[in-house]
Amino acid sequence: MIAWKNLSELASFEKVKECKKVCLKEVMSGENGAERVKNYCVPMAGGLAYNFAAKAVDDDILAALAALAKEAQLNEKYEALYNGEMINTGEKRLVLHQLTRGQQGNAVVADGVDKRAFYVEQQEKIAAFAEKVHSGEIANEKGEKFTQAVQIGIGGSDLGPRAMYIALENWAKKTGHFKMEAKFISNVDPDDAAGVLNGVDAAHAVFILVSKSGTTLETLTNESFVKDALTKAGLDPSKHMIAVTSETSPLAKSADYLAAFFMDDYIGGRYSSTSAVGGAVLSLAFGSDVFAEFLDGAAEADATAKETDICKNPSMLDALIGVYERNVLGYPATAVLPYSQALSRFPAHLQQLDMESNGKSVNRYGEPVDYPTGPVIFGEPGTNGQHSFYQLLHQGTNIVPLQFVGFRKSQLGTDVVIQGSTSQQKLGANVAAQIVAFACGKDDEDRNKYFDGGRPSSIIIGEQLTPKSLGALLAHFENKVMFQGFLWNLNSFDQEGVQLGKVLAKRVLAHETDGALAVYSELLGI
Amino acid sequence: MIAWKNLSELASFEKVKECKKVCLKEVMSGENGAERVKNYCVPMAGGLAYNFAAKAVDDDILAALAALAKEAQLNEKYEALYNGEMINTGEKRLVLHQLTRGQQGNAVVADGVDKRAFYVEQQEKIAAFAEKVHSGEIANEKGEKFTQAVQIGIGGSDLGPRAMYIALENWAKKTGHFKMEAKFISNVDPDDAAGVLNGVDAAHAVFILVSKSGTTLETLTNESFVKDALTKAGLDPSKHMIAVTSETSPLAKSADYLAAFFMDDYIGGRYSSTSAVGGAVLSLAFGSDVFAEFLDGAAEADATAKETDICKNPSMLDALIGVYERNVLGYPATAVLPYSQALSRFPAHLQQLDMESNGKSVNRYGEPVDYPTGPVIFGEPGTNGQHSFYQLLHQGTNIVPLQFVGFRKSQLGTDVVIQGSTSQQKLGANVAAQIVAFACGKDDEDRNKYFDGGRPSSIIIGEQLTPKSLGALLAHFENKVMFQGFLWNLNSFDQEGVQLGKVLAKRVLAHETDGALAVYSELLGI
Repeated sequence: MIAWKNLSELASFEKVKECKKVCLKEVMSGENGAERVKNYCVPMAGGLAYNFAAKAVDDDILAALAALAKEAQLNEKYEALYNGEMINTGEKRLVLHQLTRGQQGNAVVADGVDKRAFYVEQQEKIAAFAEKVHSGEIANEKGEKFTQAVQIGIGGSDLGPRAMYIALENWAKKTGHFKMEAKFISNVDPDDAAGVLNGVDAAHAVFILVSKSGTTLETLTNESFVKDALTKAGLDPSKHMIAVTSETSPLAKSADYLAAFFMDDYIGGRYSSTSAVGGAVLSLAFGSDVFAEFLDGAAEADATAKETDICKNPSMLDALIGVYERNVLGYPATAVLPYSQALSRFPAHLQQLDMESNGKSVNRYGEPVDYPTGPVIFGEPGTNGQHSFYQLLHQGTNIVPLQFVGFRKSQLGTDVVIQGSTSQQKLGANVAAQIVAFACGKDDEDRNKYFDGGRPSSIIIGEQLTPKSLGALLAHFENKVMFQGFLWNLNSFDQEGVQLGKVLAKRVLAHETDGALAVYSELLGI
Repeated sequence: MIAWKNLSELASFEKVKECKKVCLKEVMSGENGAERVKNYCVPMAGGLAYNFAAKAVDDDILAALAALAKEAQLNEKYEALYNGEMINTGEKRLVLHQLTRGQQGNAVVADGVDKRAFYVEQQEKIAAFAEKVHSGEIANEKGEKFTQAVQIGIGGSDLGPRAMYIALENWAKKTGHFKMEAKFISNVDPDDAAGVLNGVDAAHAVFILVSKSGTTLETLTNESFVKDALTKAGLDPSKHMIAVTSETSPLAKSADYLAAFFMDDYIGGRYSSTSAVGGAVLSLAFGSDVFAEFLDGAAEADATAKETDICKNPSMLDALIGVYERNVLGYPATAVLPYSQALSRFPAHLQQLDMESNGKSVNRYGEPVDYPTGPVIFGEPGTNGQHSFYQLLHQGTNIVPLQFVGFRKSQLGTDVVIQGSTSQQKLGANVAAQIVAFACGKDDEDRNKYFDGGRPSSIIIGEQLTPKSLGALLAHFENKVMFQGFLWNLNSFDQEGVQLGKVLAKRVLAHETDGALAVYSELLGI
């Protein structure tokens, strides 16, 4: 029987708090440090590894965290989720994004449908559609091949798919999987749509309208923007647009689209990269086989998340260490620092995934919690960040835990040797150096050049960023966020915090304002 | 006589702490709220306005902050800076980036040179060079016009110029100022250079190598990468490259470059967008007149920063309110949220500017300070962020102060009317709505839909993002960061925190490692 309890109600959490703190500088020094880096390393899906040697934990703390995982019933709650219990209690919805990439437990039937079969069907429909676009069977009005895909969506319909596209673009070009360039329109700022359209060959572009409800104002506005532009260019919008939406949405059966592919209410936007939301654009860009490999990586990570031993379950371990840093050590933010230019927008996706899921003050029963929940998430790729905000990370007055990601091989394989090393080696050397610099610091009589160390990080290391390792990386963080939501006793799958702004914005547009809102509206020329 | 004192030594800071706190929800409600929005608004340079009605301050707190500004001698310190005193005491350097765009005080002579004249000379040399490139007088080996500019730089040589280029690209296209597309290579990840080069027509590209010292490893590596690619394409690199560097650097008088333009040690990387570092790429992309207008906006902001009345000095006021939020209210992070897609990379630039300048734990004498200094800075453009991390900003357990930016007009002017309003109106309506939602919250019996409000923000409002308003916006934040550095008694112009990582990375590449570092290096395949 699952008990949904607040973190502060768990006896094992008290034990975690009582554990002796680890002096990172000390444990990471000398040969003990070397042993630690070898031992505090957990295999992940997709050939990745989660190395947490530079986190401020030791075997005692890990044992206490394992007890916390048990008391918080993380395995049982995860099992309930993938077996189709109503985990999103606020919106009274199942949470089924994992079914888009595999079957972890029992068949889940909802609305009279086997949901796994439904998601597979959508994936297959997309694959068939993409194949026809690539072969030219589906073409523009003149029978010419489409050469570009443009996704119109915002939030989860934009950040994840965009980050995944950028992550695989160069890999696909190198390996012969690149089929079509993709571009993205998201912001209601008219300069976004107009600017992107300036770089699009509209006559040869297929536009992917993504909105689960079919009512997202920004997305519908940008759709009209695009339709206008197509019409003005003498093109028929219905020959250039497809929809990704829910079956009950107004977009689902419209003649305005070449085709429609479906998701449903059981997949939150920020968890939708492995559904049709990511599937359409990624299958068009790279082919459906690449998308299938990406799903395999994610499914493998989902399976790993079932492990009961936290040292075999990297996403659970990552979640527990994160809660330790947030609720015991009191750190307010976490930086995500991929040493991979291909992951340049991965931090922006994680920022949504994490902050929208767990940036909440009430538990799943709607009662205020008395502990900090989700941290601020931010990041940029290394080495760029090193020449930017790392100053604060090294010597600022707050400690910010760090999540590094690094690969042994580049995607394109083009490289140069300068001063005896390749660029890829320099990249790897830098991330290794940073971990040790943050953990161990450096003494110096000149306090300006003194580094106190004790700044914790973990690193996920892989051979190369491929569709499979990318899928595993994505699902690792989805599952980490899920486990943290369980620990904090939050509903990680709704987002009521975004509603108030929408309501007030509508009021402004209807000129139904008074007080401060009326004056701001005037200042902004509305 | 200037006294450099810690914030905690200032009697006026004690008074600030003693001020009665403001209940934002209360003061922003009803007609009082409307009055507040009208009154708490300060004109800025470039036609912008700084509206701080939704900050948790009142006339008492403002008076206390004005007294703090006086005791901390903010005006005198700024005057010392622009008159050429050695403000960067750690590196024993003057701080002269403001001279690149105007003369705020006395002539500054350093190294036997009038520095203002020197910067103007560089600007003129760049203008003449850009003119010749645009006219075709300077052309490739075959006498064909250059059509692309590719900047090679990292940190301050990348983030600022890149953000400014993106900010003006669409404006320039609309107004007929667009001369050449610009691209940027920064990361030592070989996939960055290789990926960018895949999209570059190398035969018609001019590459801008930017490194003050001429020794930045990432940049020199990427230069070699580019030279390799040019040579392999049968092109002569020396006919395709220019350098922006200091006169004493190895790049300064090399035959490897078509031309060299100079900056010097008195301009920190993160303050260099208005120097030759931004000047070369922006003048090539948009013409030197556009760059000159951008400088005018910045100079106007620098002049405004001289005001002694904090209600006429928006950057000083912004700085004081930020210190109040950080050191009295205890908020650890600040989000920068431009409602302008053109400013999509402006938060990344501010992240460097702020976190690298003030992310420090020792004062300008190298003594540890006993108060928090620079916060974590992050952000993405609205409305995108609304569908992402705003959930945490509205309902998370930490309060994050917000810096909005909004404009009444779009840059491209293309728009559509949907549901009775244009996209630009929707954009403005959203930012107005967000400010009020954050400040005032909303009661609801369902705690899940309850917003406690009291979340402070300010907004900078302008007519349109143009070269001039962009320059003013940039300099506003540079000056804000400078004033905060004065308040915290930091040296905001060095960055010793980035050194340790460089040293350790070199050790890895030389295989001179042991302990943890050796194992990490092995795991990363070095």
